[in-house]
Amino acid sequence: MVDKKPWSGRFNQPTDKLVEEFTASIKFDKRLYRYDIEGSIAHCKMLAMQGLISPEEEKEIVSGLEGILGDIEAGEFDYSPDLEDIHMAVEKALIDRVGKAGEKLHTGRSRNDQVSLDMRLYLRDEVEGILDLVGVLKSSILRVAKNEINTILPGYTHLQKAQPILLSHYLLAYREMLHRDEDRLKECYDRINIMSLGSAALAGTSLPIDREYVAELLKFPKIAENSMDAVSDRDFVAELIFDASLLMMHMSRFCEDLIIWSSGEFGFVEISDSFTTGSSIMPQKKNPDVAELIRGKTGRIYGNLVSLLTVMKGLPMSYNRDMQEDKEPLFDTVDTVKGCLHILSGMVGKLKFNRERMLEAAAGGFSTATDVADYLVMKGVPFRESHGIVGRLVGYCIEKNKELPALSIEEFRKFSPGFGEDVYKYLTAEDSVNSRSSYGGTARKIVLKRIKEIEKQAKG
Amino acid sequence: MVDKKPWSGRFNQPTDKLVEEFTASIKFDKRLYRYDIEGSIAHCKMLAMQGLISPEEEKEIVSGLEGILGDIEAGEFDYSPDLEDIHMAVEKALIDRVGKAGEKLHTGRSRNDQVSLDMRLYLRDEVEGILDLVGVLKSSILRVAKNEINTILPGYTHLQKAQPILLSHYLLAYREMLHRDEDRLKECYDRINIMSLGSAALAGTSLPIDREYVAELLKFPKIAENSMDAVSDRDFVAELIFDASLLMMHMSRFCEDLIIWSSGEFGFVEISDSFTTGSSIMPQKKNPDVAELIRGKTGRIYGNLVSLLTVMKGLPMSYNRDMQEDKEPLFDTVDTVKGCLHILSGMVGKLKFNRERMLEAAAGGFSTATDVADYLVMKGVPFRESHGIVGRLVGYCIEKNKELPALSIEEFRKFSPGFGEDVYKYLTAEDSVNSRSSYGGTARKIVLKRIKEIEKQAKG
Amino acid sequence: MVDKKPWSGRFNQPTDKLVEEFTASIKFDKRLYRYDIEGSIAHCKMLAMQGLISPEEEKEIVSGLEGILGDIEAGEFDYSPDLEDIHMAVEKALIDRVGKAGEKLHTGRSRNDQVSLDMRLYLRDEVEGILDLVGVLKSSILRVAKNEINTILPGYTHLQKAQPILLSHYLLAYREMLHRDEDRLKECYDRINIMSLGSAALAGTSLPIDREYVAELLKFPKIAENSMDAVSDRDFVAELIFDASLLMMHMSRFCEDLIIWSSGEFGFVEISDSFTTGSSIMPQKKNPDVAELIRGKTGRIYGNLVSLLTVMKGLPMSYNRDMQEDKEPLFDTVDTVKGCLHILSGMVGKLKFNRERMLEAAAGGFSTATDVADYLVMKGVPFRESHGIVGRLVGYCIEKNKELPALSIEEFRKFSPGFGEDVYKYLTAEDSVNSRSSYGGTARKIVLKRIKEIEKQAKG
Amino acid sequence: MVDKKPWSGRFNQPTDKLVEEFTASIKFDKRLYRYDIEGSIAHCKMLAMQGLISPEEEKEIVSGLEGILGDIEAGEFDYSPDLEDIHMAVEKALIDRVGKAGEKLHTGRSRNDQVSLDMRLYLRDEVEGILDLVGVLKSSILRVAKNEINTILPGYTHLQKAQPILLSHYLLAYREMLHRDEDRLKECYDRINIMSLGSAALAGTSLPIDREYVAELLKFPKIAENSMDAVSDRDFVAELIFDASLLMMHMSRFCEDLIIWSSGEFGFVEISDSFTTGSSIMPQKKNPDVAELIRGKTGRIYGNLVSLLTVMKGLPMSYNRDMQEDKEPLFDTVDTVKGCLHILSGMVGKLKFNRERMLEAAAGGFSTATDVADYLVMKGVPFRESHGIVGRLVGYCIEKNKELPALSIEEFRKFSPGFGEDVYKYLTAEDSVNSRSSYGGTARKIVLKRIKEIEKQAKG
Repeated sequence: MVDKKPWSGRFNQPTDKLVEEFTASIKFDKRLYRYDIEGSIAHCKMLAMQGLISPEEEKEIVSGLEGILGDIEAGEFDYSPDLEDIHMAVEKALIDRVGKAGEKLHTGRSRNDQVSLDMRLYLRDEVEGILDLVGVLKSSILRVAKNEINTILPGYTHLQKAQPILLSHYLLAYREMLHRDEDRLKECYDRINIMSLGSAALAGTSLPIDREYVAELLKFPKIAENSMDAVSDRDFVAELIFDASLLMMHMSRFCEDLIIWSSGEFGFVEISDSFTTGSSIMPQKKNPDVAELIRGKTGRIYGNLVSLLTVMKGLPMSYNRDMQEDKEPLFDTVDTVKGCLHILSGMVGKLKFNRERMLEAAAGGFSTATDVADYLVMKGVPFRESHGIVGRLVGYCIEKNKELPALSIEEFRKFSPGFGEDVYKYLTAEDSVNSRSSYGGTARKIVLKRIKEIEKQAKG
Repeated sequence: MVDKKPWSGRFNQPTDKLVEEFTASIKFDKRLYRYDIEGSIAHCKMLAMQGLISPEEEKEIVSGLEGILGDIEAGEFDYSPDLEDIHMAVEKALIDRVGKAGEKLHTGRSRNDQVSLDMRLYLRDEVEGILDLVGVLKSSILRVAKNEINTILPGYTHLQKAQPILLSHYLLAYREMLHRDEDRLKECYDRINIMSLGSAALAGTSLPIDREYVAELLKFPKIAENSMDAVSDRDFVAELIFDASLLMMHMSRFCEDLIIWSSGEFGFVEISDSFTTGSSIMPQKKNPDVAELIRGKTGRIYGNLVSLLTVMKGLPMSYNRDMQEDKEPLFDTVDTVKGCLHILSGMVGKLKFNRERMLEAAAGGFSTATDVADYLVMKGVPFRESHGIVGRLVGYCIEKNKELPALSIEEFRKFSPGFGEDVYKYLTAEDSVNSRSSYGGTARKIVLKRIKEIEKQAKG
Repeated sequence: MVDKKPWSGRFNQPTDKLVEEFTASIKFDKRLYRYDIEGSIAHCKMLAMQGLISPEEEKEIVSGLEGILGDIEAGEFDYSPDLEDIHMAVEKALIDRVGKAGEKLHTGRSRNDQVSLDMRLYLRDEVEGILDLVGVLKSSILRVAKNEINTILPGYTHLQKAQPILLSHYLLAYREMLHRDEDRLKECYDRINIMSLGSAALAGTSLPIDREYVAELLKFPKIAENSMDAVSDRDFVAELIFDASLLMMHMSRFCEDLIIWSSGEFGFVEISDSFTTGSSIMPQKKNPDVAELIRGKTGRIYGNLVSLLTVMKGLPMSYNRDMQEDKEPLFDTVDTVKGCLHILSGMVGKLKFNRERMLEAAAGGFSTATDVADYLVMKGVPFRESHGIVGRLVGYCIEKNKELPALSIEEFRKFSPGFGEDVYKYLTAEDSVNSRSSYGGTARKIVLKRIKEIEKQAKG
Repeated sequence: MVDKKPWSGRFNQPTDKLVEEFTASIKFDKRLYRYDIEGSIAHCKMLAMQGLISPEEEKEIVSGLEGILGDIEAGEFDYSPDLEDIHMAVEKALIDRVGKAGEKLHTGRSRNDQVSLDMRLYLRDEVEGILDLVGVLKSSILRVAKNEINTILPGYTHLQKAQPILLSHYLLAYREMLHRDEDRLKECYDRINIMSLGSAALAGTSLPIDREYVAELLKFPKIAENSMDAVSDRDFVAELIFDASLLMMHMSRFCEDLIIWSSGEFGFVEISDSFTTGSSIMPQKKNPDVAELIRGKTGRIYGNLVSLLTVMKGLPMSYNRDMQEDKEPLFDTVDTVKGCLHILSGMVGKLKFNRERMLEAAAGGFSTATDVADYLVMKGVPFRESHGIVGRLVGYCIEKNKELPALSIEEFRKFSPGFGEDVYKYLTAEDSVNSRSSYGGTARKIVLKRIKEIEKQAKG
């Protein structure tokens, strides 16, 4: 005799116990319980509305499902692997509770239907949660940017000092990245927010279901147009993981900066004790573990993306069991991204910048050399020529072990007759910063203007 | 003495020849020549407008650049690796042609500026091109879907026969996927379509440039808000490659189906001779090489995505030379996706479906078992019970080696008294297909309605 | 006051609770408990041997550690996240049990030391376990290959019938792949099997430890040569995941074949009821879920590989906290690969091949066309010419809807005068198979010889 | 009429021109020409030996092939895409030259056969080349390590100063990594070095070929055992790309260090002018472009690995055209890895270390705190207690803004009575380094011993 799987009618042998374990998804898809029940209640209401079940049956099913929800949330639900997945587990519990009526719940739908619907309900909530956390991080960055509006540090390219910049300007660059992440997530949300239930196995159903009504109950603005596509579409999962990959990439860059800036050699920032840990062997250590872990967890999300893309490559239409492998990378991505956003927001708010050290660094390393070149351009020297002149000037400084402001006017003039006494107004980090007043530049007034715009948009 | 690199002012030793070769990007970024010149002309006009160069200089530069464009398109341009990249190569050629004026072109901008602008100009064109090709493939699919509106085949899940479907319905599922691809590409386009020039090295510039004017000249609706972000943002590149990854994944699934359907065992479709190749050793072979290559090239695009994401992971702000590695995966992605879309569109239009074989297959394999179960549901049997009954019925058929329509009414009744003579109306593939008339289902009328909607949208 | 982290001497603020949770690895690294204790016992014995602790302290520590092991295995151990990781949790429990002596255990080693050692001890066991399972799968395949020595089926290239082959030959091809997997795993094992303890933080230690003695106690044949490399080497983890990736890839190909062969259209194989599952909606379905899941889980392992490679990319020397992200992908890889090997071995042993259907398929589709071409070659026709002749012959057959054996000798001769009556000896699948007697070919005698060799090697 | 493809016998329509372009691999596989001809000559000699062609035909074919080789190397060979691939191109050129005899060359082999053989011949050469370059880099590192045997710098974990180390010790850590890379490459070489020719299409051949003889001619120690496996095995390609991935990962870490060390803030190293480049806009810049590009190119190789693994996932047995996509990622990997190894070797040899700066950095940052803790351990304080004491001591120093050597003995004793005057012998970087004399540690004598061992092995 065959064990009583709900699909076992045609089977002569029971499922191998190990196979049961191997194929069961309940150990991870149980996280969808709330959405599964929500979806089933909507489906049940529609079945009643359409006369496919009676009002009494509807009542029994709804109250049964609510009871199950209560049990689950009270931690009194049995998730044994022979129940395969959360969908079967809930259905079985329902039949145990309410009998015959429960056997009618699966009318006009399939498990693949449920999987897709549950994932979409789940992701709507999670994407909203992620968006909230991105918002918090953006605010956190903005607050620090406002606070550091007078802090000057060197801007780097190739990790070599390039030009002095405002710390606020630097921070707002990350805010821009997060803003794009938000846009992408919102667009992804629109593609998640589509009602897929009603594909049944893959071809739709002959029963007179009403998908519009289910969509209305579950607040979906759109309905999937093609039943075969609906049961085998995992684009929205891949897209979410990709959006998360870019988001993690941005955080990994920020963390890389924080790690480098925390080194003794840079000494630009001190991460709060509460966001660092020590060493089991070296008593002096205070390590930027949190920043390192966020950087490292980028690999995890990239891996999840590759995992899902690989699963989907070359699968024949329509549903194939391989697709069950979509859930763990997705859940891990959601948890990881939320964790990282949350922790990073907290850490950013407690960063202690060493403003003196930053300014000092900005003043050195010939970081105003471009200003000198631009000075000559304003005096009529073609840029390429001026660039060459200042390059040789820097070479001279290195040889003499001097910084630019220490040169005499005669020394300047040896390299170009274009230099006048006013060149000294272009040599400090502060002058340099404030001169960069082109749209999007680092000048204090430009950055302040941008902050105001952002605050206005936030209010509007 | 140092070789005359435009940046060599402070250098005492020339670049190692191998290093020159290793770092040069001109061998692949020369493909950007047209955009580089277009961008430089706009930049030059702005410099003139702002009085940073004279009208005469403007004229000289513009005509010089146009001459270079002509040379390149005539194949008369020298791309030697010591010129590093297309930007330097064009600038040097300009100085050779017009002298001093040419040395002024680089005023108020940097190479990173140019790279970003050129990539955006290039990608605007390419994304438009890809969108056109997606449109062609969608039309090609729609045409076949209209043509095959009466063709029935088995729908599969797990590559096992599930339920009969219309070939048109199947094809429109791929159209849905392509439609989502289009949406993603258009949204990506909006993030590409942002004017980034004017960041200079990373901090903006002290020269009175006018970024709005450049944006207007180059028809960009938006301007990048933060100079540091602008020079180190490669999100739009990663996003495009991701969108291409999903697009390839969809094509890989379609191709997998075509490959399986082309097998002698399925025999559902014959790919045109002009889209297949033969074997060097087996005279009888006609292989679906094109479909296999498209499926295989999915790996290539996934690889390109991983490549770029890896490059960007953990890079400190702002530009780092690693980013030069963005171009080859991007160019390869654009070429590959365009090639695959183009070829697949052609192949789809020439597919010859074996309608008899498909129908025959749809009729067998108990593909109407769900219809029988739904029949009992309509007679009042709870779905779970009805599913069990039909499962045992199928087991009986397998044992007796019969298909469902071959059963006598007595045999049906042995399994449930709910069966009446009318059950025979639910056993053919055609009845099954047409009964699935729920929204998004495979019934002929539903599919026809959907085709009309699509055609209406296309016109509107 | 600061919470009592063992490294908190220099800290003024306690770790943020969320940070504690975020950075703690104990939720997954607790799986290493046995190896951690084994390593600590060896370390402790060495400390005693070197006089760094007293014999009494040694006794206390060893018995304390053994007690902890007992507790853990009895499920009576507290893994709270504030204990960070399994190493700290065990050390703390030890100090709680034995006091002062316990505080001496960490002498001359670091946590990074422990992580590396524990991972190596763990992986030695796991790689042995994986090798055993590969061995079981190989045996399972060999058994079926012996059983099916007379079964002929079409060999495919491009999923088009190519030439008839023996099922045994086909199966032995997978055995070859598994054999290479074994070789790679064994070589990886040798790189795992290196004693790394004794690097301390990263520079070695000034305490007179004896690494050779620890290696001897833990049965390591080799000792890591450089302390900085030893604490930051994760090559062996990446290598194991790569080896697992290829192993999964091989299984994914086998499963793809089984899935296709299980389709009604091919009908070459029936997977046992106990290794398949049904549908919640379609009563007739029997789905190759296990094969699909194995194929899908390939993505998971590829993802784990990308995850780890990304983590390690561009990390500065030596240990960085990012590396903590090595464990989950590794553990998941080990579990997944073991599960898949185990399940596949079971499934293979219960496959029921439809020999008649396979033979029938092998006979059709012009699969002996190459034999006909080779026949002409033996009669002196150059291969290229003969290939062309047979190609046209096949075209003629398709047009006339005939298979090759159905052609009259006159029809053959229309295409080449080289054909004689003996051509009919080259047209059956069986003749074709047995003619392929080149080394490594599919002829029955060659395959049997290979089976004997394998059996001999297994005994020897 | 159909165009004259060598396999076109059964085809009625010519290949679409775009399809020809799309499927042709000649644009990249032409790089295999030398191996293709070498393999064909060996195959031809075997055919003659076995009497399958006459001695005259052998002579004609061999001399024809040699002529073609000459043409190709003289740049006088036509690679038009309608020739599909290098194998067909060479065969066609041969038939053009020598007529009938040329048509016999393809006897008893297939193109897939040739692809596999050519790839193996090619990779044998390339792996040897890569091994040579790894050897050069190792030597380069060893030379610098010997030269810098007295250079002390801080060792870092988490990019925080941990303990003083020798630069030589640091460098030798990279040598260890390269050594493992070598081992893996050599093992991969053994799996490449297998003669695969003789599988014909997939089943072996009925013609009396002699694979042992071909193996002997081409110096292969082993022959592939199973014809189906042989034509569809790409494990050796994936393995090589993985080995390259780890190699690149190691180089990326080294380059990350060099980039950080080149920053003004660290200032530990100056990369030679000939291995750096400047900025188009900032005259002072000297950027570590080469190191950045090597770090970035790691992404490229990871991408190639994902590309190939994706291609192979779930492919049915045996050859499928998808596999043609193996070549470009492989070729790109070979070129990239060779380029990076070559360039890095050159750059390493010309690094100018700032020894004073390194020593100064090593002296600061409490990098000898562990030494102080170990000092207390030697005085009998349990390690955990001693770690806590020194942690508080460091906290005190930070508050007082002092380094450890500046503390008075009274200050020391406030934290533990265990401190004696001899503590001052444990506070300098040099003392610290030389105290770490455990096996594999950083003490000068240990490092010198290791260098001697390495030199001895190199000679032996």
